[in-house]
Amino acid sequence: MTIAVYPGSFDPVTLGHVDVIKRASRVFEEVRVCVMKNPKKHYLFSEKERLAFLTESTKQYSNVMVDAYQGLLTEYVRAKNARVVIKGLRSSGDFEYEKQMDFFNKRLAPEVETLYMAADNAYSVLSSSAIRELMTFGGSLDGLVPEVVLDAAAKRMGGKA
Amino acid sequence: MTIAVYPGSFDPVTLGHVDVIKRASRVFEEVRVCVMKNPKKHYLFSEKERLAFLTESTKQYSNVMVDAYQGLLTEYVRAKNARVVIKGLRSSGDFEYEKQMDFFNKRLAPEVETLYMAADNAYSVLSSSAIRELMTFGGSLDGLVPEVVLDAAAKRMGGKA
Amino acid sequence: MTIAVYPGSFDPVTLGHVDVIKRASRVFEEVRVCVMKNPKKHYLFSEKERLAFLTESTKQYSNVMVDAYQGLLTEYVRAKNARVVIKGLRSSGDFEYEKQMDFFNKRLAPEVETLYMAADNAYSVLSSSAIRELMTFGGSLDGLVPEVVLDAAAKRMGGKA
Amino acid sequence: MTIAVYPGSFDPVTLGHVDVIKRASRVFEEVRVCVMKNPKKHYLFSEKERLAFLTESTKQYSNVMVDAYQGLLTEYVRAKNARVVIKGLRSSGDFEYEKQMDFFNKRLAPEVETLYMAADNAYSVLSSSAIRELMTFGGSLDGLVPEVVLDAAAKRMGGKA
Amino acid sequence: MTIAVYPGSFDPVTLGHVDVIKRASRVFEEVRVCVMKNPKKHYLFSEKERLAFLTESTKQYSNVMVDAYQGLLTEYVRAKNARVVIKGLRSSGDFEYEKQMDFFNKRLAPEVETLYMAADNAYSVLSSSAIRELMTFGGSLDGLVPEVVLDAAAKRMGGKA
Amino acid sequence: MTIAVYPGSFDPVTLGHVDVIKRASRVFEEVRVCVMKNPKKHYLFSEKERLAFLTESTKQYSNVMVDAYQGLLTEYVRAKNARVVIKGLRSSGDFEYEKQMDFFNKRLAPEVETLYMAADNAYSVLSSSAIRELMTFGGSLDGLVPEVVLDAAAKRMGGKA
Repeated sequence: MTIAVYPGSFDPVTLGHVDVIKRASRVFEEVRVCVMKNPKKHYLFSEKERLAFLTESTKQYSNVMVDAYQGLLTEYVRAKNARVVIKGLRSSGDFEYEKQMDFFNKRLAPEVETLYMAADNAYSVLSSSAIRELMTFGGSLDGLVPEVVLDAAAKRMGGKA
Repeated sequence: MTIAVYPGSFDPVTLGHVDVIKRASRVFEEVRVCVMKNPKKHYLFSEKERLAFLTESTKQYSNVMVDAYQGLLTEYVRAKNARVVIKGLRSSGDFEYEKQMDFFNKRLAPEVETLYMAADNAYSVLSSSAIRELMTFGGSLDGLVPEVVLDAAAKRMGGKA
Repeated sequence: MTIAVYPGSFDPVTLGHVDVIKRASRVFEEVRVCVMKNPKKHYLFSEKERLAFLTESTKQYSNVMVDAYQGLLTEYVRAKNARVVIKGLRSSGDFEYEKQMDFFNKRLAPEVETLYMAADNAYSVLSSSAIRELMTFGGSLDGLVPEVVLDAAAKRMGGKA
Repeated sequence: MTIAVYPGSFDPVTLGHVDVIKRASRVFEEVRVCVMKNPKKHYLFSEKERLAFLTESTKQYSNVMVDAYQGLLTEYVRAKNARVVIKGLRSSGDFEYEKQMDFFNKRLAPEVETLYMAADNAYSVLSSSAIRELMTFGGSLDGLVPEVVLDAAAKRMGGKA
Repeated sequence: MTIAVYPGSFDPVTLGHVDVIKRASRVFEEVRVCVMKNPKKHYLFSEKERLAFLTESTKQYSNVMVDAYQGLLTEYVRAKNARVVIKGLRSSGDFEYEKQMDFFNKRLAPEVETLYMAADNAYSVLSSSAIRELMTFGGSLDGLVPEVVLDAAAKRMGGKA
Repeated sequence: MTIAVYPGSFDPVTLGHVDVIKRASRVFEEVRVCVMKNPKKHYLFSEKERLAFLTESTKQYSNVMVDAYQGLLTEYVRAKNARVVIKGLRSSGDFEYEKQMDFFNKRLAPEVETLYMAADNAYSVLSSSAIRELMTFGGSLDGLVPEVVLDAAAKRMGGKA
């Protein structure tokens, strides 16, 4: 059985992330979406919120599990007996960065393979940080994030007004 | 069971190709290396030779099969009940090209996923056409192609002299 | 009054083209879509068809005109008293190519400015040649071309069967 | 009447900026050069100086106005009844960044179009930050900035000695 | 003594080429500009003309020699006891191509080093093929080619009229 | 005699750096590897260590000298009567950055030429910062750094355990 790990901050999850998860869930027996916790980083949404958003927006995929982890990605992958890390690629700039990560991860865990999926064009410039910017300036998130995030964002933005 | 297809011309197979095949064979239950036949294209090595090179250089991977096909990649993938196409990415230029292919294949067969692997750095500028050029001008192929190709190339280059 | 020229082969026009035309029609007083005729090039659709597709799919924009021209783009621009050429940019690769064209056109007609629009993400890997490829292999054109082209393409593809 | 906005920090204005302004002034009825004020950012030249530099170096273009604004670009554009934002593109890296900005602005103000101009080759690696670096280390600014900036920079650099 | 070879088609030599030659002549004891002859290629200017253009436009650099060669670059480099090949880099696209050539040449002659110079910005989109295009369509070559080429091009273009 | 300067932080020196030094030492009469000191930057290895690593790992190249300098690169180059700066290029992204540096240095010292070498593929994603990351997380440095650095890193990493 091939288990794939899909790591990220997911602050918040976007429809681009959900698309990658859906496609990965058709290819691998189990997909573990893993919220990587970086104690030095400040997040807009709490870990609990981010996990809830992911759980809600992937509930229709029965072989997808949502998790959180603090530490090295390769350690998590090994602990779960996974062999594959999934990443979405939006642009050639993404790929240059990912080659560095791949090199790094291969050194720490040569048996782990990173596999890339081309992002759907509709999401090719979409990122969690773009969502946070749009929230700051009151831009519409419609068609960019799952409904559960739309609602949470509306509350946040409303609280501001 | 997830079957992955690794398509190409393999004229001839390089150690970069063999590295991708080896890594894919660890992730997927079955890997079908498929020599795509294009009747309009002229090849340096015959189909029979290319298949023999691939068979010989992947014989240590028991879940790898070698095949040839004339037609659309997506048709082959469906005929074999595969759901995954594997591609190696060497550079960001490769990715720009692959995004076009991905778009095209998704239109023909939305259920088929293309997954990319970053090429090992050692092979990041290696290609079959570079091998053919080196053969034309008598450059060393050492460390670039499997032994079986080294031998065949030596014979060809010898035959030229 | 600023007249803008939007040149291309439009073999056939895509929804990416139509999106650029629509956006340009809001900015410039007049937009002249110009089918550039290259006698050395072979086209899938006749000039008459290509003009008809463009006319039909831009009829809701009253300040858009459709035209055909054989010769240098800059000559056409001058003949129409236009000062602006509009181009869509899909990728950074597109931009590298366009910089060459810009340099060339500036030498022939320094008073003509080329202005670029970023393609809508939905169309960021879409091109007329991709459409022709999809037609060859029976892929769906849905959501990629205007209705009038969908119909014409269906007839062509049907005629093949 | 089409009004175009050309936004930036202009700390200080370079001849690359002036070239874009000149070209835009030939295409649009009115060009509003807008010094965007970011209270969190530290500038080398005061807002007053930056406005003076721009006013002086664009005085020969009668349809160019110089302005300053603190807030969202799209708000300024709307307030001025402009429909176009002008940006200069120097490299394909610039374009990747601008695609993100375009996506963001389109969400906030879908009716505003961003149009790009390829930078003149002579200015393709020139930026305000490069000018500030050169000032720090005593490099020549000749041919890179308008005369008024040359003079101001000389005074600053002299004051240092 | 370090001898550097600067290879190319030089059909015709541009001011971008002359700039690289001038800069190389300050660094290396001897610079051999080598017109590479490809019997399968069709040239606009004859070999004799191209050599004459190069000789005339580099005559002020006493350590620059002009040569022609048919065969492999690395063979020429070895025959001249040179250890260095000089190439101009205009864009990151150029570099991707040059990495392939570097790989190829290193296989044929590991002792030969290719050294790259960043093209002067003024010449960053200039190429011999752009010059030939401009000649075809009557564009000005002013500031793009040495005087001797300007004269020859004027004659050619005049002969056309 | 042509003296070339190879500048960097070398925190620590990698086998990619050593490869560039070795190749430069075959081309230039003297190669000065210069540890650039930036008082605002925090280093993992002390200046003394970094110099010792470089000295040890280049001792077989008799025309290579190791140095340290605080100040502008161009000042150091002039002080040593050098005319050439050597840089390794790993990717097209590197080149975009280097063009900016080249522009800057040319302004400060027009007589100094920067020459680029394509990094060996084996080292195309290797950097000092990748080494420091690997040390932090206990990844293997084998085949990435000279032996003297391997030993020092092992001590550091041991001291951590």
